[in-house]
Amino acid sequence: MSIIVLHGSTRDDGNTEQLAEHVLKGIPHDNILLRDKKILPIDDLRHAEGGFRPVEDDYDEVIQRVLEHDVLIFATPVYWYGMTGILKNFIDRWSQSLRDERYDFKALIAQKRAYVIAVGGDQPRIKALPLIQQFKYTFDFVNLPFQGYIIGQASKPGDIVKDTRAAKEAEWLNEELRQQ
Amino acid sequence: MSIIVLHGSTRDDGNTEQLAEHVLKGIPHDNILLRDKKILPIDDLRHAEGGFRPVEDDYDEVIQRVLEHDVLIFATPVYWYGMTGILKNFIDRWSQSLRDERYDFKALIAQKRAYVIAVGGDQPRIKALPLIQQFKYTFDFVNLPFQGYIIGQASKPGDIVKDTRAAKEAEWLNEELRQQ
Amino acid sequence: MSIIVLHGSTRDDGNTEQLAEHVLKGIPHDNILLRDKKILPIDDLRHAEGGFRPVEDDYDEVIQRVLEHDVLIFATPVYWYGMTGILKNFIDRWSQSLRDERYDFKALIAQKRAYVIAVGGDQPRIKALPLIQQFKYTFDFVNLPFQGYIIGQASKPGDIVKDTRAAKEAEWLNEELRQQ
Amino acid sequence: MSIIVLHGSTRDDGNTEQLAEHVLKGIPHDNILLRDKKILPIDDLRHAEGGFRPVEDDYDEVIQRVLEHDVLIFATPVYWYGMTGILKNFIDRWSQSLRDERYDFKALIAQKRAYVIAVGGDQPRIKALPLIQQFKYTFDFVNLPFQGYIIGQASKPGDIVKDTRAAKEAEWLNEELRQQ
Repeated sequence: MSIIVLHGSTRDDGNTEQLAEHVLKGIPHDNILLRDKKILPIDDLRHAEGGFRPVEDDYDEVIQRVLEHDVLIFATPVYWYGMTGILKNFIDRWSQSLRDERYDFKALIAQKRAYVIAVGGDQPRIKALPLIQQFKYTFDFVNLPFQGYIIGQASKPGDIVKDTRAAKEAEWLNEELRQQ
Repeated sequence: MSIIVLHGSTRDDGNTEQLAEHVLKGIPHDNILLRDKKILPIDDLRHAEGGFRPVEDDYDEVIQRVLEHDVLIFATPVYWYGMTGILKNFIDRWSQSLRDERYDFKALIAQKRAYVIAVGGDQPRIKALPLIQQFKYTFDFVNLPFQGYIIGQASKPGDIVKDTRAAKEAEWLNEELRQQ
Repeated sequence: MSIIVLHGSTRDDGNTEQLAEHVLKGIPHDNILLRDKKILPIDDLRHAEGGFRPVEDDYDEVIQRVLEHDVLIFATPVYWYGMTGILKNFIDRWSQSLRDERYDFKALIAQKRAYVIAVGGDQPRIKALPLIQQFKYTFDFVNLPFQGYIIGQASKPGDIVKDTRAAKEAEWLNEELRQQ
Repeated sequence: MSIIVLHGSTRDDGNTEQLAEHVLKGIPHDNILLRDKKILPIDDLRHAEGGFRPVEDDYDEVIQRVLEHDVLIFATPVYWYGMTGILKNFIDRWSQSLRDERYDFKALIAQKRAYVIAVGGDQPRIKALPLIQQFKYTFDFVNLPFQGYIIGQASKPGDIVKDTRAAKEAEWLNEELRQQ
C-alpha cells in the first residue's frame, strides 16, 4: 500500500502540514505541494466541439502521480469555510480527466481510498462540516471510498500543537494507515 | 441602489449566466466575468514578516469595482459540489483585503447585501446545500447580509430553460431586486 | 395519482398548514394531522428476542393510510431546527415497519414520491437545510424519491402570507403536482 | 463542576450509553434516562390567549434537574439521521421553558456548556453531520456554548467497542471533562 498527500496550503510548514506530518509519522509517503505546481482553472469545454484540449501546465504530471498510489490524503487549510482555491482548481480539472481517453480515470480512482485532513481557525468542527460533505459528494461521484477525516483547529503558526483532540485523532489515523 | 454580478463560470453564456440574466431582466447592473480576469491564488502571508505584498494581477481592480455597488450577486456553476476554483480564488483573496490598509474592507462590505445564484447538474437542490452554507459562513464573517439564493438544475447548454422551478424563483428575485 | 399530506404541526391552522393548503389548492388530497393521533416513541427491539411487539396506538392505521397514496407530502413546522417531535416519533417507527412481516414496507414506499414543506421563524432557508438533508438521507434509505421541498418563513400566526418567495414556490409545486 | 447526561436512547445499555460510560469513566455525574420519563410533545400555545398551560408530565422535574448542573451531555442514538423522537420532544418543550415566568431559562442555560455524543449505524461521521449542525443552531439560540461532540459507529448491541476512533475521542473527552 502506498500513500500520497496532496497539500492544498499556500504557506510553508503551516498547521495543516504539521498535522499531516503527525498523522504520517513513521509511515512512508509521497507529498505533492500544489502551491509549487502550475495548475490552471478548468476551461469547461465538455460541450464544445472537439471537447477538452491539452493544457500546458503541471496537472497531467500531478494526476499521474496521484494515480500511482493507493491511499489519497487531501490536506487543506480551511479558507473561507472551503478547501483552498488551488486545491479546488485541481479537483475542478477532474472533469477533464473524466473525459481523457488516455486512461479510465473513474475506474482507476475508484480502486483507491481517500482521507481528508482540514485545519481551520473559526470553529472548524462545525463550520468545516459543509466542506466535509462536499468531499463526500465528490468522492461518491467517482466511487472513491471516503475512509475518514480529521478536523483540526489552529490560526497562528504552530497553534495546532495545542489541539489535543486533533492529536488524538492523528494517532488514530496513524494506526489505521499502518494496518492497511 | 446599484447591482453587480460576479460570474464564476468558465463557459461563455452557460446555464448560470442565463439564469442570472433571467433574474436581472430589465434591471441595470454591472457584470464581472472572473474568467476574463487574472486573479492569482492567495499567498497566505498573514503571519509573515511584513504581511501581504502587492500582487500583480486584476484582483485590486475587481474588488474596487465590487465595492462600488450595493447589491452583490455571486453567480456560479456548481463544480464538484462547490463554487468554481476561479471564484474560490477570488474569495480567498478577501483575507488580503481584510488587512489592506488602503480601505476598511469589513466596514465597506458590511453595508452591502448578497445573493447567490448556483446552477448544478447533479441534484443541486440537495447537493449544493453545503455550498450555500459556506456562502452563509463567509458572508457572516464580514457581516454581509445574505438575502437569498436560487439553485437551478442544468447540465447541457441551455438546459436551464427547462427548470420551471428556477424560473419561478428568478421571477421572485427579479421583483425583490426591483423593490430595493 | 393520489396525494396525502402528513401534518407534523401541533397548532391548528398554523403557517405550515396554510402553506400546504396553498400548495394543494384545487387538488384532491388526504390529510393526516399527527397531533390528533396517538403515536408512541419507538421501543428499539430490533435486537431483542422476539423482535418488535404490537403497539397499542394509531401508528398502524396511519402508516396503512400513507401507503395507499402515491405522493407523500411531509408538512412540518421547523421546531428547534428539526422536524417536530411528533413527526420524528412517527418516522422513528418506520424501523418497526421495516421488520413488519405483514407487508414489505421498503418495497411499497419505494414506489411513491416525497415532498417536504417546512416553515420556520429563524432564517429557515439557511437553518432548516440540515433538516432537508436529513429527509434526503431518510428517503434514500427506503429508496423513496425526494422530488422537492419548499421552505417558508413565518413566526406569528398568518405570517406566511408575507413570504412572497414561498408563495411563488407553492405555485410551482401546485403545477408540478397537477401534472402527475 | 457537575455533569449531567441526558440519554435519548430507547434501549437499555445500548451502544450510545456504553460510549457515554466510556467518556465518563471515573467522573461523577448524574444520568437522566428520558425513556423512563413521561414527556409530552409540546402544544405550541405561544400565540394562544393565556399562553402555555401547565402540563402534567415529568418535563418540569427533568428540566429542573438539568439546570442544576454545569455541563450538559446529550447522548443520543442516531435514529433516521436525527436525534430520537423522545429527545426531540424534550427539546421542543424548551419553547415552553423560554416563556416560563418561574425562571429565566435562557439566562440559566447560557451559563452551562454542552457536549453531544451520537452513535449511528449508517456512515454516521457523514450522515449525522446535519444532526450536529442542528444541535449547534439549537445551542446558539439559547447561548449555550457547544464545546464538542463525538460521533460513534455501531449497529448491533456491543458494536461500539470495535470503533477504535470513537474510543480515542472518548479518551480525549474524558480528559477534557476532568480538567473543568
